[in-house]
Amino acid sequence: MKVRTQKGVEDYRAVWMDGSRVHMIDQRALPHTFEIYSAETTDEIAFAIRAMVVRGAPSIGAVAAYGIAMAAGNGEPLEQAAQTITSTRPTANDLFFAVRQVRADIEAGMDPQMAAEQYVEGLVAQCRAIGEVGQGLIKDGASVLTHCNAGALATVDYGTALAPIRAAVEAKKEVFVFVDETRPRLQGTKLTAWELSNEGIPHAIIADNAAGYFISRGEVDLVIVGADRICRNGDFANKIGTY
Amino acid sequence: MKVRTQKGVEDYRAVWMDGSRVHMIDQRALPHTFEIYSAETTDEIAFAIRAMVVRGAPSIGAVAAYGIAMAAGNGEPLEQAAQTITSTRPTANDLFFAVRQVRADIEAGMDPQMAAEQYVEGLVAQCRAIGEVGQGLIKDGASVLTHCNAGALATVDYGTALAPIRAAVEAKKEVFVFVDETRPRLQGTKLTAWELSNEGIPHAIIADNAAGYFISRGEVDLVIVGADRICRNGDFANKIGTY
Repeated sequence: MKVRTQKGVEDYRAVWMDGSRVHMIDQRALPHTFEIYSAETTDEIAFAIRAMVVRGAPSIGAVAAYGIAMAAGNGEPLEQAAQTITSTRPTANDLFFAVRQVRADIEAGMDPQMAAEQYVEGLVAQCRAIGEVGQGLIKDGASVLTHCNAGALATVDYGTALAPIRAAVEAKKEVFVFVDETRPRLQGTKLTAWELSNEGIPHAIIADNAAGYFISRGEVDLVIVGADRICRNGDFANKIGTY
Repeated sequence: MKVRTQKGVEDYRAVWMDGSRVHMIDQRALPHTFEIYSAETTDEIAFAIRAMVVRGAPSIGAVAAYGIAMAAGNGEPLEQAAQTITSTRPTANDLFFAVRQVRADIEAGMDPQMAAEQYVEGLVAQCRAIGEVGQGLIKDGASVLTHCNAGALATVDYGTALAPIRAAVEAKKEVFVFVDETRPRLQGTKLTAWELSNEGIPHAIIADNAAGYFISRGEVDLVIVGADRICRNGDFANKIGTY
């Protein structure tokens, strides 16, 4: 994702690994301060998840994947590292999945960081695929409403709900985004609007309770939200306010 | 309305007049601090309305009514006082109505404070009537959702949307209130919940975006909201989020 810093526009991921350290954009500090949180121990990984330094199921999974790779590199018992990391957010399915998969690959003999990178690249490729498929639903000139942050911050890069919007803009379509502020933690105001500002995509933050009004006036062409779980019949679970 | 202060439970109105001064509960300071703002000049009356020391159309009307009475008592030209007071909130219909009525009564020879008190007592009587009629709609054990603050703070005493709830509780019914926090100014969290706490009425503050969820689960029996304007056909205008 693009990030406008004092040095200009730089390219960042929400989470990445550099030798023996795991880095992530500190989502607690946004949008006013752009800070990187760096973890060097399994406990620091667990803290980052628990304190919401990192949030968004895929990004949490990525931190967990890199955390397991870091623990393996440090010669820690993986059983114990997995226990510490998965105890942080018992409802985060990606977290368990990432730990299980990366641990299995390492135990099967794969290089730890390579195992984690493979997991993370899979996530980003999925996001790009969502963008490619989803942008076909966005007409030129459309207004799209979104809730919470299912953007690059939540998913390492590109986003899930924001992916079709990014892809539509890359395809030279004009898109306007209504950003629900998303109480109680304001991920829309603090994170989604920050991402859209960095990308130069026109948008407005609205109070959650204004969404129905804009929809009723016909000013919203499409609503795109993330999903914590999706059933085969199309039912899905997501952040409060999605209903 | 009941207010729990350090001295115990006391009875207050949102706005009242005492000789040459107009007093009001400072709604900016609630719920953490209970303070009284006292105005001695027309400019202080205008400030109170403009800065939202007082809010809620009927309470604004009451402050305006008392403000005109105060100006008359101080021998100010009423035309100028009316101009200063009505310029504060050009969309507040009660404000214009109160100023016009009290000024007409004074110019017809009525004692200024008596003219204002007559106006204010009329408001409170209307609220009590709303409560009497409305409480018939609330079944024993009902859960009621409300948005913003259309309580005693907004209406001098008793409330409009909260009046049926108060009357139902006085009639010994059990009532539970879902209080929308009401972004962006949080009048639900700061004012409605404060009133309900003082009255000992069970309630929960919810994020505005959770209202649809609770309604969809059948946990809300009734929604009662205030109204800025009501049309003959039943359409009405109210705070964002009402839709």
